[in-house]
Amino acid sequence: MPEVKSGRWFIEFYSPYEAHMHGVRKYLVTEETNFQFAEILITQEYGKTLILDGRTQSTEVDEFIYHEALVQPAMISHPSPQQVLIIGGAEGATLREVLRHRTVKEAVMVDIDHKVVELCKKYLPEWHHGAFDDSRVKVFYLDGRKYLSESPQLFDVIIMDITEPVEHGPSYLLYTREFYQIVRDHLTENGIIAVQAGSTSMRFLYLHSVIYRTLTTVFPVVKTFQAFVPSFDLPWGFALACKNEKLDPGRLTEKEVERRLQERGVAGLRFYDGCLHNGLFKLPKNLREALTQQLDIIEDDKPVFAVV
Amino acid sequence: MPEVKSGRWFIEFYSPYEAHMHGVRKYLVTEETNFQFAEILITQEYGKTLILDGRTQSTEVDEFIYHEALVQPAMISHPSPQQVLIIGGAEGATLREVLRHRTVKEAVMVDIDHKVVELCKKYLPEWHHGAFDDSRVKVFYLDGRKYLSESPQLFDVIIMDITEPVEHGPSYLLYTREFYQIVRDHLTENGIIAVQAGSTSMRFLYLHSVIYRTLTTVFPVVKTFQAFVPSFDLPWGFALACKNEKLDPGRLTEKEVERRLQERGVAGLRFYDGCLHNGLFKLPKNLREALTQQLDIIEDDKPVFAVV
Amino acid sequence: MPEVKSGRWFIEFYSPYEAHMHGVRKYLVTEETNFQFAEILITQEYGKTLILDGRTQSTEVDEFIYHEALVQPAMISHPSPQQVLIIGGAEGATLREVLRHRTVKEAVMVDIDHKVVELCKKYLPEWHHGAFDDSRVKVFYLDGRKYLSESPQLFDVIIMDITEPVEHGPSYLLYTREFYQIVRDHLTENGIIAVQAGSTSMRFLYLHSVIYRTLTTVFPVVKTFQAFVPSFDLPWGFALACKNEKLDPGRLTEKEVERRLQERGVAGLRFYDGCLHNGLFKLPKNLREALTQQLDIIEDDKPVFAVV
Amino acid sequence: MPEVKSGRWFIEFYSPYEAHMHGVRKYLVTEETNFQFAEILITQEYGKTLILDGRTQSTEVDEFIYHEALVQPAMISHPSPQQVLIIGGAEGATLREVLRHRTVKEAVMVDIDHKVVELCKKYLPEWHHGAFDDSRVKVFYLDGRKYLSESPQLFDVIIMDITEPVEHGPSYLLYTREFYQIVRDHLTENGIIAVQAGSTSMRFLYLHSVIYRTLTTVFPVVKTFQAFVPSFDLPWGFALACKNEKLDPGRLTEKEVERRLQERGVAGLRFYDGCLHNGLFKLPKNLREALTQQLDIIEDDKPVFAVV
Repeated sequence: MPEVKSGRWFIEFYSPYEAHMHGVRKYLVTEETNFQFAEILITQEYGKTLILDGRTQSTEVDEFIYHEALVQPAMISHPSPQQVLIIGGAEGATLREVLRHRTVKEAVMVDIDHKVVELCKKYLPEWHHGAFDDSRVKVFYLDGRKYLSESPQLFDVIIMDITEPVEHGPSYLLYTREFYQIVRDHLTENGIIAVQAGSTSMRFLYLHSVIYRTLTTVFPVVKTFQAFVPSFDLPWGFALACKNEKLDPGRLTEKEVERRLQERGVAGLRFYDGCLHNGLFKLPKNLREALTQQLDIIEDDKPVFAVV
Repeated sequence: MPEVKSGRWFIEFYSPYEAHMHGVRKYLVTEETNFQFAEILITQEYGKTLILDGRTQSTEVDEFIYHEALVQPAMISHPSPQQVLIIGGAEGATLREVLRHRTVKEAVMVDIDHKVVELCKKYLPEWHHGAFDDSRVKVFYLDGRKYLSESPQLFDVIIMDITEPVEHGPSYLLYTREFYQIVRDHLTENGIIAVQAGSTSMRFLYLHSVIYRTLTTVFPVVKTFQAFVPSFDLPWGFALACKNEKLDPGRLTEKEVERRLQERGVAGLRFYDGCLHNGLFKLPKNLREALTQQLDIIEDDKPVFAVV
Repeated sequence: MPEVKSGRWFIEFYSPYEAHMHGVRKYLVTEETNFQFAEILITQEYGKTLILDGRTQSTEVDEFIYHEALVQPAMISHPSPQQVLIIGGAEGATLREVLRHRTVKEAVMVDIDHKVVELCKKYLPEWHHGAFDDSRVKVFYLDGRKYLSESPQLFDVIIMDITEPVEHGPSYLLYTREFYQIVRDHLTENGIIAVQAGSTSMRFLYLHSVIYRTLTTVFPVVKTFQAFVPSFDLPWGFALACKNEKLDPGRLTEKEVERRLQERGVAGLRFYDGCLHNGLFKLPKNLREALTQQLDIIEDDKPVFAVV
Repeated sequence: MPEVKSGRWFIEFYSPYEAHMHGVRKYLVTEETNFQFAEILITQEYGKTLILDGRTQSTEVDEFIYHEALVQPAMISHPSPQQVLIIGGAEGATLREVLRHRTVKEAVMVDIDHKVVELCKKYLPEWHHGAFDDSRVKVFYLDGRKYLSESPQLFDVIIMDITEPVEHGPSYLLYTREFYQIVRDHLTENGIIAVQAGSTSMRFLYLHSVIYRTLTTVFPVVKTFQAFVPSFDLPWGFALACKNEKLDPGRLTEKEVERRLQERGVAGLRFYDGCLHNGLFKLPKNLREALTQQLDIIEDDKPVFAVV
């Protein structure tokens, strides 16, 4: 039996009846920004941890799982990603993953919260590895939807690395059908959007499946997959949607994935490779059924919020 | 934000610094048996829950994931399972899954704890669906290792549905090289063993990988896979090992899995099917590396225990 | 450092930011009555525990503190209590304390919740010690206010052993000025009312002091005191109010208290005696100030509720 | 019902089965000193809080209760305290309370942990109110027992404001009979020692009563009393012992206490006054019995430790 000591805990309630407790070693940052409540702390088991509005975003020990899962399947599914847009992505780790591909000529990151990005730059070098200093990078501190609506630029890959949709929060209008239409109009012909799509654990499937369903109203090909993120104590869902109906991330062979990784000089991955990609879209039966049975759609005037 | 109420919680500590909290609606059973401390309670989110020695075994809402994952890949990977042995399996759900296959002529269940089986029979009909009454079933209340050592019978599939190895607990000698040798000697030519193999979450990988490594010292083919079990808040690992080196569960096509399911009249599955099977063994890179880098072996005089 | 084990906890939230955790050994009763949610459980440190609507009422180990504090100062302060009324008092321990005085000729208990009294009779013999079978006792299952309003009988001591005032709960109209007027009209000349008056811990002083203030609008003498109840992890407040301005519980000497206890054959007390009584009303300065500075009054159309 | 939010909690375990949870607003300091693990945090309900080795020492909101209870009864019980020694006392609040008496000519504070005193000076001005700058004050950073053994000086009042006795901790040899003999030999004829003496809650009474008993082997008069400290969720015990058998803190009248307070210019007290003093030593029967029945004595080679 573990010997539990008096002390500091971060308790994350997922519902009135479910919570996870993380023992905390040290608190580094507690800051109210213009948009959210930001904390950086060091937990006993996961090291440095970024928390926004009370929800764990990523941790030193396992952020590689979340960020590789969010970025690599989308980047690899595109034949040659050159212009990439990240909406959100404060930690800089999504940027880091994008920049691994030497096809990339420009990576634009648009995050609404300047302060949080500053904190991540300063406190989370283990995440960004200096990515912000790469000459291919441009960072804007703006609302992602406003930026995209007004931008004349087209992108090969657009990555939605944003917080969950929460009432009065900064991101719930980045999950709607209307927003995805704006995305579609800013993708190149073979363009792909990658979306963090909520937990795939049973009790959260509504949000995950309604994001899926909403994407299907705008894109001809939509695929979802999941990766277990230890510090969340939850499997997390991701969605890929393609403008070109002939592209299907699920059809790439293990070999082709490995070929593209090598060709583009992608090195240092710890979670993702051809073998994983090959099984990624083979979801459990109950999860596939939840997706196909979902009929609701998220719209600007019918937003959907994470359960808590 | 969730409105948390004063009340009953079941808190499961995974380490001195990590715990999961489950709100409890009602307690049905609290009983000290000859072998373990058994509880059956009703949690707010997962319904009835069986807990042995403080660890969640399975819940009404998601037991189908655990039990289908433990049983179906093994049963389907065998060309025609007729004689099946379950060691452990108190809830009767493993039995239920085995009996779905009409190839099965005999299903022997050996559980050390008569009292726990009685409690499950009485309180958990949602699990066993009356499986204990099937005419193909024999149940013995014995130590599984002793039973197998002394049995002259050979089995097509042997399923290890036992609690985690805990010092002084009832099951730690069912994870050793010596035990797996006894298993091998009681398998038919195409025989397969399925093992619940601990969590695959990062902090628990030692146990999972050392079970894998130990199996490889006895069997020519060993494969592991994982399934996320919501009430554990953890992905759970399973291992399959085959006596016949030409059998490899990872080579079965989606089509062949579906054909076998249909041929054997297997109906009512909610988690497992051919699509899932097809991707099941495509593990993340870091998980595959943990398996191949593990050199330790569990032996009778060098047992390994779950972290807590 | 304590070795904390996975398991059952009762967590009582006192505010969104303060809670007490009690390890639970066993659950005996979980029952929704017509009036409240009743639980009887066995905690590791306090033994059997009665909980109503999520709030600890009393425990096997320390109920003697609560019940002696509620009953004995009032009984002793009355020169010769013969007719006693208890409103609430389900556990039967308040009755037990009243019956210790051989002056008592009749003890009437009026509890709204028949079911809870039945549960206490059956499960809590350590509390009532068979008090319900005493020939001097009459029990009615009615709303205490309705009973008193319609009763032609006068009482020497009236004891309010009721749950805290909670919106929609069964007892908030038993804390108002109008109710205390009904009480006054049913007290004999030397009559005394004893009230459980909420915690005296700093954060709860509003409720305690407003009960005090409300009593002063009806009675010429009002005194409050506190006793620490370990299972509450809180000091609990009690109020005494006298109809006769010449009676003052604070003026009784240690000797006189001991004389009355002996004369009435009161035996078996563990918490209360003359020594304690002598210091009981000497409250800390900040607590006395909170009482005198309180100006609010609880009225039927301006009820006050416990913080949570 | 309180709306509990995900977030930071400080959980203080008092036993494997009892704990208090405090919601935390902000962490100010986390520091490993040469002697202990020091934290200063801001809880939602008690403001700034000093925690040493996982145990709450005092908080902004209610430190006045602890410090007035520790200091004032002792100071007032001495006819004219001029030389005062504080052992421990890092926060500076004990010093503050001592300095209120204009009889005081010299206040010596001996704390083993220079670093903790520095942190308190910097972060806890609400406690010390600049007391460290008073010209009557001398501070030494030494082991209190060593200091006193070697000091030729005699004191009128010696105040033990130290952490609980914990194995390997800095203070357990400051609770023994041998230490109290050293104290006695450094007290003037009317000298008094005041000791923080552990919680008086039922489950902690062993420590409290054994401190009492040990003092009685050295001093002719020993009195204990309790004060509820909200942030501890516990009543705390204190002991006074006098060298002169004619002095008894319990015999001072309310009037005499008020006279001394006024004469010495003591102002600004919030918890203590003559009324409180008058009832302070009138303990509950069960507490008095625990003291008189205790036969164990703490000695250098038979130390006693706090339960956790």
